[in-house]
Amino acid sequence: MVGCERGNKEIAGCRVSLYPMSDQFITLLSKSIKTNRLDAVWSDTDLFSTLYRGKQESVVDAAAGLFVRTYRPEVHSVCELTFSKGCPGDVAQDYVFNNENPTPNSRFISQYGNFTVQCKYSFYAFGITNYMNEIAEVVTLAKKRNLYEGSTHYVTILEGTAAELFAYFEEVLAYADEHIEHYVLEATLSVNSPSK
Amino acid sequence: MVGCERGNKEIAGCRVSLYPMSDQFITLLSKSIKTNRLDAVWSDTDLFSTLYRGKQESVVDAAAGLFVRTYRPEVHSVCELTFSKGCPGDVAQDYVFNNENPTPNSRFISQYGNFTVQCKYSFYAFGITNYMNEIAEVVTLAKKRNLYEGSTHYVTILEGTAAELFAYFEEVLAYADEHIEHYVLEATLSVNSPSK
Repeated sequence: MVGCERGNKEIAGCRVSLYPMSDQFITLLSKSIKTNRLDAVWSDTDLFSTLYRGKQESVVDAAAGLFVRTYRPEVHSVCELTFSKGCPGDVAQDYVFNNENPTPNSRFISQYGNFTVQCKYSFYAFGITNYMNEIAEVVTLAKKRNLYEGSTHYVTILEGTAAELFAYFEEVLAYADEHIEHYVLEATLSVNSPSK
Repeated sequence: MVGCERGNKEIAGCRVSLYPMSDQFITLLSKSIKTNRLDAVWSDTDLFSTLYRGKQESVVDAAAGLFVRTYRPEVHSVCELTFSKGCPGDVAQDYVFNNENPTPNSRFISQYGNFTVQCKYSFYAFGITNYMNEIAEVVTLAKKRNLYEGSTHYVTILEGTAAELFAYFEEVLAYADEHIEHYVLEATLSVNSPSK
């Protein structure tokens, strides 16, 4: 666990905001936030989101765990995700690195994450001029996984199971980690929309 | 209304996604989407968002109009906004430019937009290396308007009335328009949160 003075380039993070369109939203959220397994991430819940910080795979695991635990077949719910890594203003604190058990929610996600999810997302890369090429690479990865549904203004559309989408996010973030200093993935997941 | 082949640098856009945490979310959203004044923007509602495209001030006006019309004092509601302009992949279609009446919702927003809103947001500038300086400029504008509440991981926090926040977004986007080719403002607005 080696940090540098201002930031630590190994710390990934995700803000997870959940919006169950139900009068029971408090009960639903409290339960999933409490039962999600946090062995591998630092966690904090504020007015807007639950924030996870740690190794990239652990952050994806925690975000997926929370999303899957909040799912109810009868409730239309939306989840806003901001994955971020490499911000020059980041600080080397508020994180956990767990190398022994980095993905404690993975079994739960495989078992319960097979419901269908609609997704819009945008991939943002900073400080480079060829960022449009990087976006194209990221979209190609979605096509290879048969998740790509189309592109519209400002976002790309995906459809797949929860487990499939988070596996894709992990692949995107691993790709980004190899090629880009600072990047953000903004995704919105929708389940049981009456518009569908 | 002069367009170029691939894009039109004058077309601004905003995706507005609204999440009323209530069993009555369909009624609430249908009503506000139908009553919002769209004289100055192109509009489309998909599974995720209502999308407005037109001149920047008109897009801010339409987004604010929709947000204020969805507000109910007894309902916790969240609004996700993606303002975007200058994407090299944008197309010169799906827009309205109205120079005679560019902000048809402004009176409504002044009259009904005086409720308190908590906001998290991030400003993203692309294709340039000094993007962190541009973020600092944008945050300085919030401080000058007394909306700044603090910074935390990946986002800046604001608090103000709905009318004040959208006036600030308009200032940020006008600043960005002068200085940056391609930029995105991602904001999440929260009202009546039980966490507050």
